[in-house]
Amino acid sequence: MIEKITSLTNGKIKLAASLKEKKYRDKSGLFVGEGLRFSEMAALSDFAIDSVYFTGDFTKNTREKNLIESLGKKTAAIFEVTDKIMAKMSLTKTPQGVLLVIKKQKYSLDMFKSAKFAVALDGVKDPGNTGAIIRLADAVGADVVILTKNSADAYSDKVVRATMGSVFNIPVVENVSAEALIRFVNNEKLSLYVGAAGSNCCYDEDFSTGGMFVFGSEAFGASGEILNAAKKIALPMLGKAESLNVASAASAILYEAVRQMR
Amino acid sequence: MIEKITSLTNGKIKLAASLKEKKYRDKSGLFVGEGLRFSEMAALSDFAIDSVYFTGDFTKNTREKNLIESLGKKTAAIFEVTDKIMAKMSLTKTPQGVLLVIKKQKYSLDMFKSAKFAVALDGVKDPGNTGAIIRLADAVGADVVILTKNSADAYSDKVVRATMGSVFNIPVVENVSAEALIRFVNNEKLSLYVGAAGSNCCYDEDFSTGGMFVFGSEAFGASGEILNAAKKIALPMLGKAESLNVASAASAILYEAVRQMR
Repeated sequence: MIEKITSLTNGKIKLAASLKEKKYRDKSGLFVGEGLRFSEMAALSDFAIDSVYFTGDFTKNTREKNLIESLGKKTAAIFEVTDKIMAKMSLTKTPQGVLLVIKKQKYSLDMFKSAKFAVALDGVKDPGNTGAIIRLADAVGADVVILTKNSADAYSDKVVRATMGSVFNIPVVENVSAEALIRFVNNEKLSLYVGAAGSNCCYDEDFSTGGMFVFGSEAFGASGEILNAAKKIALPMLGKAESLNVASAASAILYEAVRQMR
Repeated sequence: MIEKITSLTNGKIKLAASLKEKKYRDKSGLFVGEGLRFSEMAALSDFAIDSVYFTGDFTKNTREKNLIESLGKKTAAIFEVTDKIMAKMSLTKTPQGVLLVIKKQKYSLDMFKSAKFAVALDGVKDPGNTGAIIRLADAVGADVVILTKNSADAYSDKVVRATMGSVFNIPVVENVSAEALIRFVNNEKLSLYVGAAGSNCCYDEDFSTGGMFVFGSEAFGASGEILNAAKKIALPMLGKAESLNVASAASAILYEAVRQMR
């Protein structure tokens, strides 16, 4: 049963619109995603859907109709809204006609004691890079992505969009302190590597048993605690560029680990 | 001798502001870059500077003063402007107090006949990815970056910013047709590789003699002509992600070539 919402001040609409801000995402444990392809991936994922919003003309075509039908198996809260209401909730300039409010999955580090291959971001702020690295961590078959306290929010619209659905595929542990991360790798006897320009060439390292690979902030690198505890690794810089985009560096290093682990 | 400009309708200001649009960049052969670090790199590069604009309070500190001085060795056209004028020319919401108009360097494919390691983008539209790949091509020591006709403009503000100065370090050949690119690799007996999801694993390939590495559009891949002429290569996809961000894919593949060429 699809209900219609026509009031901009409806409580559900106000809640969905509030999720643009991190503090409301944190408080509610909810986040927002938009668009046909993304919503199809959400429907197939094991994430719980809180509610679904679409504009009247969205369900004109079969693929869109099927999407709403399959979302109906995950939640009873499906609402048809006006263009104005969609614009209020949407995070993009040109809303794509469908928007989901999704329940975050809460993970903690101790759920990943058997992890052999982990990716951590320590202070990476750019949402495009954060999303690209979550997508990359999924692609390389990592067990988990860990975000330290001062990193971008994995559930902001820009990060979620840049993951291209990988936010549903790989667990993300948020708000981990550098100390907790170091304690974890020590307890689990996991090798700890950190990307640091100008250090040991990653092709001379042995990644064959995996490890935890940390990538630091674009501007300042990883935090001192992690730099001290980890083995520093770098890519050869053969031109005049001083450094790489952090997502580029992460890709070359994580795929080198993949190559060695094959 | 530093001149002051106070009129928003000054011809130089109008020209600089017009360079936000590709058609005026193409017509004039000029492009714009902003900010302290970028301007320092421009001053050190062998690119000709057309003109320099800064706001009154920019030169309060030594580093900024030194920049303007060193730019003065490259051009006599140095202008102090008002905040309003800077805002009109600037491509960012919060202008950083210095803006350069720079002359593009014009390259053609036949200038790179001795190239052993080349990177080509065929239809990559996203400016962040385009800039990250130009920076990457610089880092891996490629000889040249080639952009096909339907790719992003290497001199748009977003691309220039994402290159982090690498636009000064590595030659970019623009507007190359797929046919010209294929003719070039055939004449120069250069191996031609194209990233194509689901094809041959790049770790089973021999990149030790280099080659030209093409990366296609995020949505549609490379053009049919190039796909037919090139050896298709892919990265292992070990999780649930269907594909990688094109800049991530390019990094893992180009660094695998670097590793093999060492």
